[in-house]
Amino acid sequence: MDTSVTTAHRIEHDLVGDIEVPAEAYYGAHTARARDNFPISGVAISARPRLVTALATVKQAAATANGSLGLLPEPAAEAIVAACRRIRAGALHEQFVVDVIQGGAGTSTNMNANEVIANLALEVLGRPKGDYATVHPLDHVNLGQSTNDVYPTAVKLALDGYVGDLLAAMDELRESFEAKAVEFADVLKIGRTQLQDAVPMTLGQEFGAYAVTIGEDQARLREVRMLLHELNLGGTAIGTALNAHPDYRGRVLRELAALSGIESLTGAADLIEATADVGVFVQLSGVLKRVAVKISKICNDLRLLSSGPRSGFNEINLPAVQAGSSIMPGKVNPVIPEVVNQIAFEVIGNDLTVTLAAEGGQLQLNAFEPIIANALFAGLEHLAAGCRTLATRCVRGITANRDQLENAFAASIGLVTALNPAIGYASTTAVANEALATGRGIAEIVLERSLLSREQLDTLLSTDRLTGRRTLTA
Amino acid sequence: MDTSVTTAHRIEHDLVGDIEVPAEAYYGAHTARARDNFPISGVAISARPRLVTALATVKQAAATANGSLGLLPEPAAEAIVAACRRIRAGALHEQFVVDVIQGGAGTSTNMNANEVIANLALEVLGRPKGDYATVHPLDHVNLGQSTNDVYPTAVKLALDGYVGDLLAAMDELRESFEAKAVEFADVLKIGRTQLQDAVPMTLGQEFGAYAVTIGEDQARLREVRMLLHELNLGGTAIGTALNAHPDYRGRVLRELAALSGIESLTGAADLIEATADVGVFVQLSGVLKRVAVKISKICNDLRLLSSGPRSGFNEINLPAVQAGSSIMPGKVNPVIPEVVNQIAFEVIGNDLTVTLAAEGGQLQLNAFEPIIANALFAGLEHLAAGCRTLATRCVRGITANRDQLENAFAASIGLVTALNPAIGYASTTAVANEALATGRGIAEIVLERSLLSREQLDTLLSTDRLTGRRTLTA
Amino acid sequence: MDTSVTTAHRIEHDLVGDIEVPAEAYYGAHTARARDNFPISGVAISARPRLVTALATVKQAAATANGSLGLLPEPAAEAIVAACRRIRAGALHEQFVVDVIQGGAGTSTNMNANEVIANLALEVLGRPKGDYATVHPLDHVNLGQSTNDVYPTAVKLALDGYVGDLLAAMDELRESFEAKAVEFADVLKIGRTQLQDAVPMTLGQEFGAYAVTIGEDQARLREVRMLLHELNLGGTAIGTALNAHPDYRGRVLRELAALSGIESLTGAADLIEATADVGVFVQLSGVLKRVAVKISKICNDLRLLSSGPRSGFNEINLPAVQAGSSIMPGKVNPVIPEVVNQIAFEVIGNDLTVTLAAEGGQLQLNAFEPIIANALFAGLEHLAAGCRTLATRCVRGITANRDQLENAFAASIGLVTALNPAIGYASTTAVANEALATGRGIAEIVLERSLLSREQLDTLLSTDRLTGRRTLTA
Amino acid sequence: MDTSVTTAHRIEHDLVGDIEVPAEAYYGAHTARARDNFPISGVAISARPRLVTALATVKQAAATANGSLGLLPEPAAEAIVAACRRIRAGALHEQFVVDVIQGGAGTSTNMNANEVIANLALEVLGRPKGDYATVHPLDHVNLGQSTNDVYPTAVKLALDGYVGDLLAAMDELRESFEAKAVEFADVLKIGRTQLQDAVPMTLGQEFGAYAVTIGEDQARLREVRMLLHELNLGGTAIGTALNAHPDYRGRVLRELAALSGIESLTGAADLIEATADVGVFVQLSGVLKRVAVKISKICNDLRLLSSGPRSGFNEINLPAVQAGSSIMPGKVNPVIPEVVNQIAFEVIGNDLTVTLAAEGGQLQLNAFEPIIANALFAGLEHLAAGCRTLATRCVRGITANRDQLENAFAASIGLVTALNPAIGYASTTAVANEALATGRGIAEIVLERSLLSREQLDTLLSTDRLTGRRTLTA
Repeated sequence: MDTSVTTAHRIEHDLVGDIEVPAEAYYGAHTARARDNFPISGVAISARPRLVTALATVKQAAATANGSLGLLPEPAAEAIVAACRRIRAGALHEQFVVDVIQGGAGTSTNMNANEVIANLALEVLGRPKGDYATVHPLDHVNLGQSTNDVYPTAVKLALDGYVGDLLAAMDELRESFEAKAVEFADVLKIGRTQLQDAVPMTLGQEFGAYAVTIGEDQARLREVRMLLHELNLGGTAIGTALNAHPDYRGRVLRELAALSGIESLTGAADLIEATADVGVFVQLSGVLKRVAVKISKICNDLRLLSSGPRSGFNEINLPAVQAGSSIMPGKVNPVIPEVVNQIAFEVIGNDLTVTLAAEGGQLQLNAFEPIIANALFAGLEHLAAGCRTLATRCVRGITANRDQLENAFAASIGLVTALNPAIGYASTTAVANEALATGRGIAEIVLERSLLSREQLDTLLSTDRLTGRRTLTA
Repeated sequence: MDTSVTTAHRIEHDLVGDIEVPAEAYYGAHTARARDNFPISGVAISARPRLVTALATVKQAAATANGSLGLLPEPAAEAIVAACRRIRAGALHEQFVVDVIQGGAGTSTNMNANEVIANLALEVLGRPKGDYATVHPLDHVNLGQSTNDVYPTAVKLALDGYVGDLLAAMDELRESFEAKAVEFADVLKIGRTQLQDAVPMTLGQEFGAYAVTIGEDQARLREVRMLLHELNLGGTAIGTALNAHPDYRGRVLRELAALSGIESLTGAADLIEATADVGVFVQLSGVLKRVAVKISKICNDLRLLSSGPRSGFNEINLPAVQAGSSIMPGKVNPVIPEVVNQIAFEVIGNDLTVTLAAEGGQLQLNAFEPIIANALFAGLEHLAAGCRTLATRCVRGITANRDQLENAFAASIGLVTALNPAIGYASTTAVANEALATGRGIAEIVLERSLLSREQLDTLLSTDRLTGRRTLTA
Repeated sequence: MDTSVTTAHRIEHDLVGDIEVPAEAYYGAHTARARDNFPISGVAISARPRLVTALATVKQAAATANGSLGLLPEPAAEAIVAACRRIRAGALHEQFVVDVIQGGAGTSTNMNANEVIANLALEVLGRPKGDYATVHPLDHVNLGQSTNDVYPTAVKLALDGYVGDLLAAMDELRESFEAKAVEFADVLKIGRTQLQDAVPMTLGQEFGAYAVTIGEDQARLREVRMLLHELNLGGTAIGTALNAHPDYRGRVLRELAALSGIESLTGAADLIEATADVGVFVQLSGVLKRVAVKISKICNDLRLLSSGPRSGFNEINLPAVQAGSSIMPGKVNPVIPEVVNQIAFEVIGNDLTVTLAAEGGQLQLNAFEPIIANALFAGLEHLAAGCRTLATRCVRGITANRDQLENAFAASIGLVTALNPAIGYASTTAVANEALATGRGIAEIVLERSLLSREQLDTLLSTDRLTGRRTLTA
Repeated sequence: MDTSVTTAHRIEHDLVGDIEVPAEAYYGAHTARARDNFPISGVAISARPRLVTALATVKQAAATANGSLGLLPEPAAEAIVAACRRIRAGALHEQFVVDVIQGGAGTSTNMNANEVIANLALEVLGRPKGDYATVHPLDHVNLGQSTNDVYPTAVKLALDGYVGDLLAAMDELRESFEAKAVEFADVLKIGRTQLQDAVPMTLGQEFGAYAVTIGEDQARLREVRMLLHELNLGGTAIGTALNAHPDYRGRVLRELAALSGIESLTGAADLIEATADVGVFVQLSGVLKRVAVKISKICNDLRLLSSGPRSGFNEINLPAVQAGSSIMPGKVNPVIPEVVNQIAFEVIGNDLTVTLAAEGGQLQLNAFEPIIANALFAGLEHLAAGCRTLATRCVRGITANRDQLENAFAASIGLVTALNPAIGYASTTAVANEALATGRGIAEIVLERSLLSREQLDTLLSTDRLTGRRTLTA
């Protein structure tokens, strides 16, 4: 009976000593220690499937490179490659059990990958788990590698994928605004600056600007994505390439480009700098913050424009996706923009976490890459979810209150600006003041004061001139 | 066969229209909409058990208060109370399915609670799910309430609990430093300012200061915890108490104090202000940031003091809890302080998220309370985990390198400061410069220059005087 | 002629070597070095008169204490006291020339004070500048002191004063809102949650809440102000009190309390902790951030409520303090709330600077106190200016658009919530939906549907009940 | 006498009414109002000479363009151009008196420029100040313009200049590190990861990495600088180009490119988007934050490497630029890196200010551009000052403690990693553990255990292999 309990575990050994590992576990001693050492968030790295896949991709590339250099026994190399392929296909992700918040600069994540791959490779070879003489997590799976080059490489590959997801979600959002720009192209309204009535425009122009601004953010994201493709792989512990074969770096990078399908992967020019530097993560985080700032501003606008229905701007209607209140019947709230605002706040907060972690790097390494990775992964995922949700559950269903907009346009004092070139700033100020004080219309006052003829007025106030679609000619 | 599919769902109705809800679900239409509307983080509010419990506590108090006022049919009141008790005991938490990141100022969380409680109350009464004529999620469970008073009240109760957890974890950490202060009370060392050798102290004094600083943070936490006890419950939608019975507020607060065991719960003086204001969350977040800053500083110190072993300060040894490197055998890293640093960075980032969300409140409500709550819950949990981990897996096992410290102390130039009152700033500067240039000891040079007698020197350099344990007398 | 050039300087000496100092300068070698070393912002510490005064106050207290202990020759002590008095009265502030952004944990600021006081004391004694044998900047003025206890002590005294200024400015602002709360006590309006029409309130209640929220922030400021009164003075370099007379600490604290008029000044319990810890600055900064967040929210509200005049909420009018636009005549913008928003953004940014600097402290000292002090001083001054400006140039002149509010109130769908207890959530939702779809009034529909009698309706919709001034009785 | 007082002022008129302006002032009514309205920081926009110059440049380009289109009387156009030239040459900057922190989206800054230029143009024409019928601040100087296109255009031009200054300062810093990389190319040391001894490298490699990292930041700065060249000039109030002549935009951009010497200036594709969007400022701020993070990390490293002199790393010596302590004679502190750290903290705080202000934009404009501009200007200036100071007063004077480094290298356990490929992770771990426990050298233990021959050992531990300068061949 004791035996059965005993056989449910196997004993592994590490620097600290012996440790029991569940018999069926593919991970080993180092992973088990790390799981116990970091009981922080309860979220395992398996929650980031793109990271798990990227780790397996890097390990596969390394095994192939080392195999081709004769540094790794052929059966071991082949078994490691087979194991990595299975993990990349989705197998054993649940064996990546270390917490996303962990000390050690990613060592525990790398160890987890090494151990799972080693034991899966052993399974491929028909060997029992823990038979590390045949396939060793460190001497074989980690050959020519260090956490300090493998981990950031895997993080960058994973980020590349998550950035791709975000770009696709932003496409959806941008297109939803473009469609509304077309739909509302002829809806006149009064533009606002500083929340005060300003000068005319169309609702289509307003929505078109949202599409443009998202497009610009996508351009910035694509730029920073390219920076992710510069890798320190091959630098090993501190960038001196200690213990890596001289031909290893070129081979592993070629393999990795092929496996990942990212042709622009390149090696860093200064591996020592590249090992310590996390500038690319700071840059990416800064761009995500920019995306967050701008999407938050758009959501603020959507909430303003749909405010009311009676005591607000009431220019547009957001689709009702749920009841708004547990006490106020019939109330519909802008819950979709609101959730996107909150995602933006989280992303901006995460940028600060990344900043602090980056600043905390010391000498040849930044020990805080795991929290950097975690903050970026979460931000990218949530932003992508937010963009998709905003497009599909809000923007596409927006309608315009054309009557409301038309009435407000007709009543606006802001039209007076258009008369400025004809009658001067001082006279137009006087007209504006009278309109405000009396509630009367601009045109009426101008004609009464004989400042302009009806014909001049019509020219100055033509829709095309007002909205910039065609401008005044002599 | 169609039937079986049909019977797997029930139809509920809300402002948007009909919606299918899984037949066995205790939640209803509003929850189902919200779950679909907010596919953001994949983490449901059930991940915050203290929040679920707090919601049930508030609902129970309200049902009791309304029941006693005759506003709620007795069977409904009793069933609601019974349902809340079961949830508080741990039942049905998995039915709290809306995302922690959600639009709508907590409405979906409140709706989720209302619906689960209503359906569980119906079960208590032997009625089928969805029989809302008997127990209605809004007309009964939510009676006299609004999300805008219930949700922040529940969040505050939950925070009170999480703050309690953190205080307990900080006790562990503080005590671990206190024990080391005693253990190292006689270990002389050179204190450092600006990373430069300064003047003498004991290692015990250094560790004692960590204990003191944590104790001060606990005092700040206790202060802000009291602010959490001021509630806007009874204010309903915007603080005007619309639709709440005039006696309701007093009764529900008394019930809540009794149920929660928090005697200091009180009602806010200005309910309108209290409904819109999230100042207490900003204050709490600011204090958590302070805790994070100081624990991060302590971890930075621990990593500095244990740097080496040969090319570093090497004054103390942190216990080896795992192998430090996948490539560098025998390397042991300060992974526990490192993970706590990272928690601190996260908490500081979360504080920014809270700040942004707080600033975004408008008019009679802050719509972004869910992300505020989420950021605070996560920060409190992770900080508590970090403090416990740091105490148990690091501080308690720290040992001092007494030889190293003794040698450094003897060789230090910093001792020269102690001679200042006797020979003046200019002369001591000259002694220090010679010591630095020649590598010789301070005492040797002072005697050679006949600046002081051996006896004077011994008095000035006595340990008690140097470390402030007994000070110079005429 | 050469002579005149030569006599225009005097030669001083420090650790680095000889240095020329302008003959008329009261500062000396250390200050001159520091001025050259930190050509950063171009803003000298003289820009913070409260800091200069506080430095002189601390030095005066120290001279008196040391004099009374017989450690300082009587003439020197008296001359130092006289010099400090003159600086506290406003003299020689322009001699405090080191940059507000400086390395060295405040050493240069302390040296600047020591040197100016020494040379002014020499002047008092009829001695030439630089005659440090008579009064020495370090051996006399700095006797028993270190930058590490003097500088934070002076910063805390200065902060105490600036906090006092801010509290006074907040009084003005709070009172301006209180006056409006009275003025608008009977102006009915529709409250808004999530920018959507919610339920009734008065404009007076809205402004009253702003007053209350500012009052609460003042309470928090007063709490943290008390923490500023705990001092590490007497701890010298690292808190071991090395080189300070055993009776010095008690005497200097008593003197300082008397001179500053702050009776609650006390010594820290653990001087080593108190020397390294900057928690009080983090706490103060966190409270300033809270003030900023809440005043920014109020300004956002004021800008919303005054939006329009025609295509906006248009509930209130802010006084026109300047023309709003260089192109749009007659446009008036909410420039005062806007400038206060920007101050708030600056203060929140400064809080991050403080956070980063605090986290960067190492071992026995935080070397970054100067930037902490600078960020706090600037934030306090700007916030105080903002509060006064907001009160005097905006809030006091606000008027209500009573007609607009009355019409909106009458037309509101939000009234429907008041019917909830009488006819239930489902029926009221239907009424609300019809009102929204048809543009008709709530009362009209309820009566048409015979849901309530006119009398019942009047009771439910009475102003006192709606605004919570008197609540429903059975 | 009364008369003299009266004649010392002139009366101007604006929307608010009459206002007295000092007779000799070149600014007018709008500026005087703004100065009174914003008594916030006491720092006038004249403190940013590049902004004043840029405003004059934009105004000159506009006058030339409008003149060539016949929209501006020739004498007025010529006088305005002459006035702008004089301001660009440095004249009248002190007349730019509005506070850097101001409400109104830059309107007051634009008004200040319009008025000073108008009155200077009047002087050119021999007309008295205030004779606006001849040259009008708005109808002439501001013709075809709005604050909303002029102000951000001027800010971008000014930023372009400040970015240029920073790039030049970074050149100095980068080159100072490159020189040290050459000087220390042969100094062997032990690299550190996570503050623990890791594997060998040279001190030259370490300093070379700093140079590389700064070079990469310069590349990012150059990218974002290009984004500053996209302008919304010609869009007037909200981007619809209302009141601008159809040919104006092309002409003014050409003029501006010629005057500024920035050939890559272009017009934005969507002027409405470009008017509201401040994304370029967020991006620039994000890059400045990245620069700050990395320079702060470098300064942290320099302080670590120079820690000691006896109880620290003591690998390098920073030049002594001032005495370090008022109490500890002979102490020299790393004050230059410390001040640069503090600049970095300020810049990171400023980035948050920019973020908050950017997020606060609403609808067709961001009203908070002044604080954005101020935060960026200050950050750029301080960073440039910091880089120059770090290069000239610190890096260039750094020396290496070659003996200390050599001894540490020889004693290091980190060398053991190099044996890994030859004897495997498990055996090297055992060797490392024995070395650590006994204090013995690696080589000695390996030979004693007969793990490798002396010859093998020498090959594995050759300097070139260890530092990656030449790698292991079979």
